[in-house]
Amino acid sequence: MTRVHVWGAAGYAASEAIRLIALHPRLELGVLESRSMAGHDLAEASPLLRRIDRRFEPSGSVLAAAREGDIVIAAGGEGEALEIAPHVLLRGARMVDLSADHRFSNAAVYGLTEWNGYAIARAALVANPGCYPTAALLALLPLASLGEPTEIIVDAKSGITGAGRNPKTASLFAEVSGEIRAYGLEGHRHQPEIEGRLRIAGIAAPVTFTPHVVPLARGMLADVYAVFADALDASSVRAAYARAYVRSPFVRLLDALAPSVAAVAGTNDAEICVTVHGRVVRAICAIDNLGKGAAGQAVANINLMCGFAEELGFHDRAIVA
Amino acid sequence: MTRVHVWGAAGYAASEAIRLIALHPRLELGVLESRSMAGHDLAEASPLLRRIDRRFEPSGSVLAAAREGDIVIAAGGEGEALEIAPHVLLRGARMVDLSADHRFSNAAVYGLTEWNGYAIARAALVANPGCYPTAALLALLPLASLGEPTEIIVDAKSGITGAGRNPKTASLFAEVSGEIRAYGLEGHRHQPEIEGRLRIAGIAAPVTFTPHVVPLARGMLADVYAVFADALDASSVRAAYARAYVRSPFVRLLDALAPSVAAVAGTNDAEICVTVHGRVVRAICAIDNLGKGAAGQAVANINLMCGFAEELGFHDRAIVA
Amino acid sequence: MTRVHVWGAAGYAASEAIRLIALHPRLELGVLESRSMAGHDLAEASPLLRRIDRRFEPSGSVLAAAREGDIVIAAGGEGEALEIAPHVLLRGARMVDLSADHRFSNAAVYGLTEWNGYAIARAALVANPGCYPTAALLALLPLASLGEPTEIIVDAKSGITGAGRNPKTASLFAEVSGEIRAYGLEGHRHQPEIEGRLRIAGIAAPVTFTPHVVPLARGMLADVYAVFADALDASSVRAAYARAYVRSPFVRLLDALAPSVAAVAGTNDAEICVTVHGRVVRAICAIDNLGKGAAGQAVANINLMCGFAEELGFHDRAIVA
Amino acid sequence: MTRVHVWGAAGYAASEAIRLIALHPRLELGVLESRSMAGHDLAEASPLLRRIDRRFEPSGSVLAAAREGDIVIAAGGEGEALEIAPHVLLRGARMVDLSADHRFSNAAVYGLTEWNGYAIARAALVANPGCYPTAALLALLPLASLGEPTEIIVDAKSGITGAGRNPKTASLFAEVSGEIRAYGLEGHRHQPEIEGRLRIAGIAAPVTFTPHVVPLARGMLADVYAVFADALDASSVRAAYARAYVRSPFVRLLDALAPSVAAVAGTNDAEICVTVHGRVVRAICAIDNLGKGAAGQAVANINLMCGFAEELGFHDRAIVA
Repeated sequence: MTRVHVWGAAGYAASEAIRLIALHPRLELGVLESRSMAGHDLAEASPLLRRIDRRFEPSGSVLAAAREGDIVIAAGGEGEALEIAPHVLLRGARMVDLSADHRFSNAAVYGLTEWNGYAIARAALVANPGCYPTAALLALLPLASLGEPTEIIVDAKSGITGAGRNPKTASLFAEVSGEIRAYGLEGHRHQPEIEGRLRIAGIAAPVTFTPHVVPLARGMLADVYAVFADALDASSVRAAYARAYVRSPFVRLLDALAPSVAAVAGTNDAEICVTVHGRVVRAICAIDNLGKGAAGQAVANINLMCGFAEELGFHDRAIVA
Repeated sequence: MTRVHVWGAAGYAASEAIRLIALHPRLELGVLESRSMAGHDLAEASPLLRRIDRRFEPSGSVLAAAREGDIVIAAGGEGEALEIAPHVLLRGARMVDLSADHRFSNAAVYGLTEWNGYAIARAALVANPGCYPTAALLALLPLASLGEPTEIIVDAKSGITGAGRNPKTASLFAEVSGEIRAYGLEGHRHQPEIEGRLRIAGIAAPVTFTPHVVPLARGMLADVYAVFADALDASSVRAAYARAYVRSPFVRLLDALAPSVAAVAGTNDAEICVTVHGRVVRAICAIDNLGKGAAGQAVANINLMCGFAEELGFHDRAIVA
Repeated sequence: MTRVHVWGAAGYAASEAIRLIALHPRLELGVLESRSMAGHDLAEASPLLRRIDRRFEPSGSVLAAAREGDIVIAAGGEGEALEIAPHVLLRGARMVDLSADHRFSNAAVYGLTEWNGYAIARAALVANPGCYPTAALLALLPLASLGEPTEIIVDAKSGITGAGRNPKTASLFAEVSGEIRAYGLEGHRHQPEIEGRLRIAGIAAPVTFTPHVVPLARGMLADVYAVFADALDASSVRAAYARAYVRSPFVRLLDALAPSVAAVAGTNDAEICVTVHGRVVRAICAIDNLGKGAAGQAVANINLMCGFAEELGFHDRAIVA
Repeated sequence: MTRVHVWGAAGYAASEAIRLIALHPRLELGVLESRSMAGHDLAEASPLLRRIDRRFEPSGSVLAAAREGDIVIAAGGEGEALEIAPHVLLRGARMVDLSADHRFSNAAVYGLTEWNGYAIARAALVANPGCYPTAALLALLPLASLGEPTEIIVDAKSGITGAGRNPKTASLFAEVSGEIRAYGLEGHRHQPEIEGRLRIAGIAAPVTFTPHVVPLARGMLADVYAVFADALDASSVRAAYARAYVRSPFVRLLDALAPSVAAVAGTNDAEICVTVHGRVVRAICAIDNLGKGAAGQAVANINLMCGFAEELGFHDRAIVA
């Protein structure tokens, strides 16, 4: 059993990570550190954790406990993962950082499982992608083999857990219910993350990115539109997507059905549907922002880092022959 | 035009009061004071106020502006209305207090419009009832003419705006969506308010009160069950309710249809349905917790205080012959 | 008072029209015809209509009652408006058709209030635009003065009332709650309506249109992206939008705030925010799909047809100086 | 592996049963029969079943396939289970009936797992309790050891999946969202089921039962109030509940926390909190109406019928020491 500690353990993504680790046959829960909830039962932080009879530990507990072979999931606030990473690594433990701290750093491997598995398996420090970049990149990266788009538009809709568990007026039920609104009109930190990763893959087109809040706790839908100079052939496009994900157990390419947030909520799955409209390729990708967009992808990455099967622990018996 | 100032103007009930005053033919918006939002546009506090081109004023503005003939709606935090009330009254203005500060005070008239209209019309200081007491008392008070119940149970369900606009984790969309839970199991301040008012009306039975949070922004349903020593006659019970509300423009007694939160949301209406089950009388009452349960009742009370028709300004043209 | 009859009166858009007419100072409710609900009270069809003490009439009632000076709102199923229109006009009454029947017909005036007001005011037969086209065209038409885009993308999110009140599994609460999904991937009838109207305005770019269902009863957000050959100047773009809507009482152009579905729900308002991203112009438009996207626009059109102010009856006192 | 066939397989409870069987280590999916969906993929019936690559079979398939050792879950419409039960049993298979058909029949064992486990383990035909009776009885049955209440009130709130997957106007998103309303005011078939089972346990008090629809897909909260002739001792009451459920792996008795629908959704758990208010005992019980209230309880009963541990297959690794 590999011990996994969670640092910043009371947030939404951390709760989901704890749930997944508790269900995993080869991972076990280590120290669950939370400054704000130290001493409280997990059950108080999330109704999903009522069956896990554990408490949050105070500051410093993860670093005190981490030792060789352990893994630390960093799920704290901005800047905190940058601070603790050297100490974690020094103790011989490895780290998956759910925060944005290492996403632009050369010290970390970018943890987009489907596209970076080889490097993730060998990494001591993995920067887990943002939820929007995960959905957008899964939908866009197969295009790299098809030529160079001139413009890319990402119109994404996210459940409100993406805004975190710290109370803000804008995340209150009464502000989100009955509402859809775009935000970050003046720019969102996930836009350069998407653009940067596309560039590394050879796609240099500018990205216009519009994130939206919708009345949904968990889940994300990203509609991406890539505009090319000339019309594309639909069957070549579909073939490129099929090739890209032929060995990815978590990606479902759909033909007749539309990607569904309800179908992926609570899972590490991604559903993608791609269609061609003259010069425009439209790919729609559904993920759970807390699953594939955060904790699910983290656990899949840990699977790779530990040499387990990518899908180990993800209710594999749900796949019925 | 009577000027109405709002003190603590950025909360949910205050926003609803502002909306109603802006629509009212004989009231006009005075000073809208908010410590936290001073200098900001109303539109930033509530999407319902986008069309009202006004700003929040800083602390002290209401007291500086209030003068004879004006009315002040107090919608601030605990204890604040107690502090400002003497100053408001000294200036010759009158006050409707949405907070709990004056609900147990002899200095104020209890503002349950349907049951206290005569006193409200002559009051300088009205203590607006809590939302739960409003729904529970409308459903229970007609029983006073029917004898003495031995036990009263109030099982009430409220939209989350009842918890206010200050951000709390428990009011986040992701905590309320997909959830129903009772709260205040150890006691809720509205229980003595209900019991106290019943006692004044001659009903001394103990009240077991269970408030619930449901995934709803606005609205409240109170199911009240009064247990009597002997079985009651259904037609006498219905007659008592009909008598109680024969002149109340906002109360609809229903026979075939069940009271509906959707039917009263955004209004000052109350829907009540009463049935008899042996020794148990069940009365179900639906109101909008921000309407009849707060701002709507406040404006109806202001109507009485100004000598206007009780229903003036409440979209009266929606009543079609 | 002008009498307005509603044909197909039990649906969601019809209910909203009835609510607006009942509130209107110069319109009165005529015959409310519904095959499925004939003989039933309005209150049974919609909680919003509890205060309107009227019944649905059986088939044939509208045509029997319609006479010169009356207006008929057609809100029935596909093909029904085509059938009754000649009879309505023959009786000297005028008609606003909420269905798609006349949207491509030369016999009718296209009822996009802000862009066709002159013709609407003189029309005997108005084809009310679809909800998606209303939002998309309000966001796109000001571009006509700025040159020719090469591609247009419309990513739209709609409340489920857009799917109508006839029960379908896909519209059940349990299918819509917790879900976001695109639909009509193989094509939606509103796409040619949008493209056709743009072409008339001189914009010939192909439109890629993605409608989505979101967990929302009422409201619509359309994000439109127009790709130009060269970068545009942001201030010219904003000026074009300002010019387009300078005299439109229902359109709010926003700078700092994002368009909000909650801000326009229950109103005939449209909120639009336009920004420029290199060669891409993004305009986001929020409307109520039952308001500006259906019944609200119908009543505004009736105002024009009757020579009233465009905004008459729309709670005008909410606009406070 | 024991084969489990599902008859009436396209409904909500059936989908949940299929999901649980697919995850179960000792059960396997047999024939999934659905008249309305025959030939269609499971994925079309429910987003929760996307990973299960199976089709619905036409009428008659279950009876053709059922043989000794198999189990049939009957999840069809009223009267259908009565018809097929003899044929199932004749083939040597056993049956768990999710419908109401056998709940009052002596031919079947009442499948309230916690209270009837011994008989269930030996049964060929189990009548699964209704969702409301499950929640109400779990909350009420421990009272049998405490004396005789004089009145019982059950105020229950249910997610809309309880109304089934057949489209009805009252179950549409736009009718349920923003709404809470009681229904069955004139009587609900679960009331005699509750009363009958209480009587068997020695509690003869009349039950006043109020079911409510709340804006929730899955989940149920039942608040039960038992009125006694004299005040009860709180610690004796708590002890009675503790004794009743000491060996029940799915029941959590709560002290400080309130029962939470979100905590039990997607599980077979029940959370119960009991408090004493003079002569009134209040017990609040949260279950998932599709889990413990239907499919979860069915699979737990199948576990007993097969001699497995009661909790086998229910993500047991989520219970962490």
